[in-house]
Amino acid sequence: MSKKISSRAEDYSQWYNDLVIRGGLADYSPVRGCMVIKPYGYAIWENMKTVLDKKFKDTGHVNAYFPLFIPKSFLSKEAAHVEGFAKECAVVTHYRLMNDPNGKGIVVDPDAKLEEELIVRPTSETIIWHTYKNWITSYRDLPLLINQWANVVRWEMRTRLFLRTAEFLWQEGHTAHSTSQEAIAEAETMLDVYADFVEKWLAIPVLRGVKTPNERFAGAVETYCIEALMQDGKALQAGTSHFLGQNFAKAFEVQFMTKENKQEYVWATSWGVSTRLIGALLMAHSDDEGLVLPPKVAPLQVVIIPIFKNAEELNAVFDRVSSLMKTLKAQDISVKLNDDDQTRPGFKYAQYELEGVPVRIAIGPRDLVSGTAEVARRDTKEKQIVQIDDLETFVPALLDEIQANMFQKALKFREENTRRADTYEEFKRLLDEQPGFILAHYDGSPETEDKIKEDTKATIRCIPLNNPLEDGVCILTGKPSTQRVVFARAY
Amino acid sequence: MSKKISSRAEDYSQWYNDLVIRGGLADYSPVRGCMVIKPYGYAIWENMKTVLDKKFKDTGHVNAYFPLFIPKSFLSKEAAHVEGFAKECAVVTHYRLMNDPNGKGIVVDPDAKLEEELIVRPTSETIIWHTYKNWITSYRDLPLLINQWANVVRWEMRTRLFLRTAEFLWQEGHTAHSTSQEAIAEAETMLDVYADFVEKWLAIPVLRGVKTPNERFAGAVETYCIEALMQDGKALQAGTSHFLGQNFAKAFEVQFMTKENKQEYVWATSWGVSTRLIGALLMAHSDDEGLVLPPKVAPLQVVIIPIFKNAEELNAVFDRVSSLMKTLKAQDISVKLNDDDQTRPGFKYAQYELEGVPVRIAIGPRDLVSGTAEVARRDTKEKQIVQIDDLETFVPALLDEIQANMFQKALKFREENTRRADTYEEFKRLLDEQPGFILAHYDGSPETEDKIKEDTKATIRCIPLNNPLEDGVCILTGKPSTQRVVFARAY
Repeated sequence: MSKKISSRAEDYSQWYNDLVIRGGLADYSPVRGCMVIKPYGYAIWENMKTVLDKKFKDTGHVNAYFPLFIPKSFLSKEAAHVEGFAKECAVVTHYRLMNDPNGKGIVVDPDAKLEEELIVRPTSETIIWHTYKNWITSYRDLPLLINQWANVVRWEMRTRLFLRTAEFLWQEGHTAHSTSQEAIAEAETMLDVYADFVEKWLAIPVLRGVKTPNERFAGAVETYCIEALMQDGKALQAGTSHFLGQNFAKAFEVQFMTKENKQEYVWATSWGVSTRLIGALLMAHSDDEGLVLPPKVAPLQVVIIPIFKNAEELNAVFDRVSSLMKTLKAQDISVKLNDDDQTRPGFKYAQYELEGVPVRIAIGPRDLVSGTAEVARRDTKEKQIVQIDDLETFVPALLDEIQANMFQKALKFREENTRRADTYEEFKRLLDEQPGFILAHYDGSPETEDKIKEDTKATIRCIPLNNPLEDGVCILTGKPSTQRVVFARAY
Repeated sequence: MSKKISSRAEDYSQWYNDLVIRGGLADYSPVRGCMVIKPYGYAIWENMKTVLDKKFKDTGHVNAYFPLFIPKSFLSKEAAHVEGFAKECAVVTHYRLMNDPNGKGIVVDPDAKLEEELIVRPTSETIIWHTYKNWITSYRDLPLLINQWANVVRWEMRTRLFLRTAEFLWQEGHTAHSTSQEAIAEAETMLDVYADFVEKWLAIPVLRGVKTPNERFAGAVETYCIEALMQDGKALQAGTSHFLGQNFAKAFEVQFMTKENKQEYVWATSWGVSTRLIGALLMAHSDDEGLVLPPKVAPLQVVIIPIFKNAEELNAVFDRVSSLMKTLKAQDISVKLNDDDQTRPGFKYAQYELEGVPVRIAIGPRDLVSGTAEVARRDTKEKQIVQIDDLETFVPALLDEIQANMFQKALKFREENTRRADTYEEFKRLLDEQPGFILAHYDGSPETEDKIKEDTKATIRCIPLNNPLEDGVCILTGKPSTQRVVFARAY
């Protein structure tokens, strides 16, 4: 607590880890690549879940739950899917342990070997489409609009807290439709749901676009995505929504009877966001003092710190603010009075700054005499003196202002860090000297994309939706191009 | 839909499966012992979660998330725990798949073998107490009151939908305290939370008690439980709360500095309920027509079925009930109007009966003339004619009455099926002829309990809290006993 966290300028990567660990959001675990999400971090995830779940239900979806394990053979049924997903997975091979016959501890019982290995789901398309086969026979069974909140495991070699962990929490929507158009509309609707959530709740502006074939989800016909820019100029994919065509329906033989009495394969989408969003939230807004949380997802929105020397002074503050606290709570604003008498106010200030609590109110004996309080906002660190009687209207308005300001600040940052490059030299120089989104022409071929990635580690983050057409030439090959796409180095 | 489900008298076990499958609650999966929880079943679980989560938070708990995987060696650190849990587990041995060098499909990459196998958590005491070691140093860090909503896996040989599945969903609370008394109070508080939830929301009366050492959780000093009686006279353990003493703190070396500056081991509890509660809910209340759901957890509480021959008649009903629907929704009552014109009303009635929707309202053209509706309640199947204008007060009151009636009915059933046995012959005869709870004396020895279980398959479900003392003799050995305990065959 006493030691400051690393600064962004000093060591961006360490700064991020300090935010997560010292901010009390997560902890390393004894299992390689897996983390413990601590109560404060989990509370942010719960707030995200609550909002997203309501948005899913408001758009007609219901929740369900599918098994954690997937039979190994399922993964190879969809040709592209197996290439993209079947490799780095946790594999269950046995179902029993036994006492070590040679001494201490326990060992795997060699007799309890599974006939077919089970894979811990890296994503659930395969088991869900296997199941949908039994649920869908007629157009009357469609659309099927199902979401699942679950844990998934991908055995990543290089992991980072929240951003890339072997196990992570997410939601995955899996929908089935009778027409291609309806499925595409669904994939687009869910992209909009994600974009709206990330912009209005997390206060992070996003680009909406589609991926190039190289970056597409394994098994998708089109992958829609939202891309955000972090403070170090690297991009972060914040959510994806896939139009799967009939690929999974064909792989799992899911047909339906149309109104015209014909058998047709079902059209599909899938879409997901994960605890990775917490990583995005941290990197988009936080500063060298610690977290800066947007009020709409902050577990604690307002903290009141009484300045007191004895119980009498504490009680005086408490009496003065108790109706304020009640009024704020009635408006669903979370507020807490920190009456710890073992810790100095300055220490508390630093702690709440580190934890990113949006509004801090300090009230001492002299404030009570003058009827005022000192209100500090976390985003700009400005302080002002406010009449205590005005706080019940001032605080909700300030929370709204902070939310709006955080978005505007992040938007300004993105605008300032979105540049155009017309030559490969300029492109490479920008990546190294002023990293951010780079709008550039390319010739549309996977080979060019691969070569640029190999040279520069930059990838095409997306082709923005409603992208303006513009004649130009590919920065690498000089071949003609009709639009700029968005490049960046990415998380 | 057209075929009736099996009756309880005919085949109780098939009746239960029919409820689950035909009621649309869950489905079998291709993974042995794992089920798919369908949207209707999951909606019940969501309702349960919402209520429980609020109760946990109201009693001071916060949520967090710990890894799915547990290093194998952790399981053997607590001696009793390993005996109870380390055996039937899913074991992850590899982390990569590869294309089969001999042809099609994919195989486990033999080079990707884990140094130490990982166990898919059957419960999380070990990994959580390993983590708590880093979080607890002083009495100021206590109590630590954490809950986790998660999936767990126990490789059960004989599985039944909801009641016993290899993977299931649950919550597990894990708390740390500075004194034994405080931990015991916590375990008892959570038992009360569970009992209150099961009785007031699920409408199932429960016995509160403690387990005998034979039936205790592996690693616990005391296991508190709530036990419910199903319609076939078998008991079902609906929730447990464990006082773990210092067993896990000692196994994982978790000590804290007391106010008096001494190092002491931390005191622990853990407590959990699972999707098994859905099984209890089904078996406690349902009948030969299908599910009977208590209004407080029913995904749909009220369904309105318009009787109509054309769009005009449908619209007339819709216009008449739209303000009613709005009023009910404003009171958080879920209500739906089924305007499907492809299905006859009688078919809809049967379907909603199968699904256990508490209140059904039918309104046709003649009803509109008379200003009345036919209201049918699912629990008693009684119908009555009610003025449409009265429905907005009648329906909420009826839902409350159904909730209360279902509890009373289940309580009466339990009272009628709780008997005393004073001899072993009587005990055995009751188990076969009139199964239910049997109150009997036993001599308190694990051997007697084992012998009775071996002879009769009945176990001691609990020693009720505040059990009246009564001198008697053990039904098996004739040795003296000071209290009756509750025996039953159990799920």
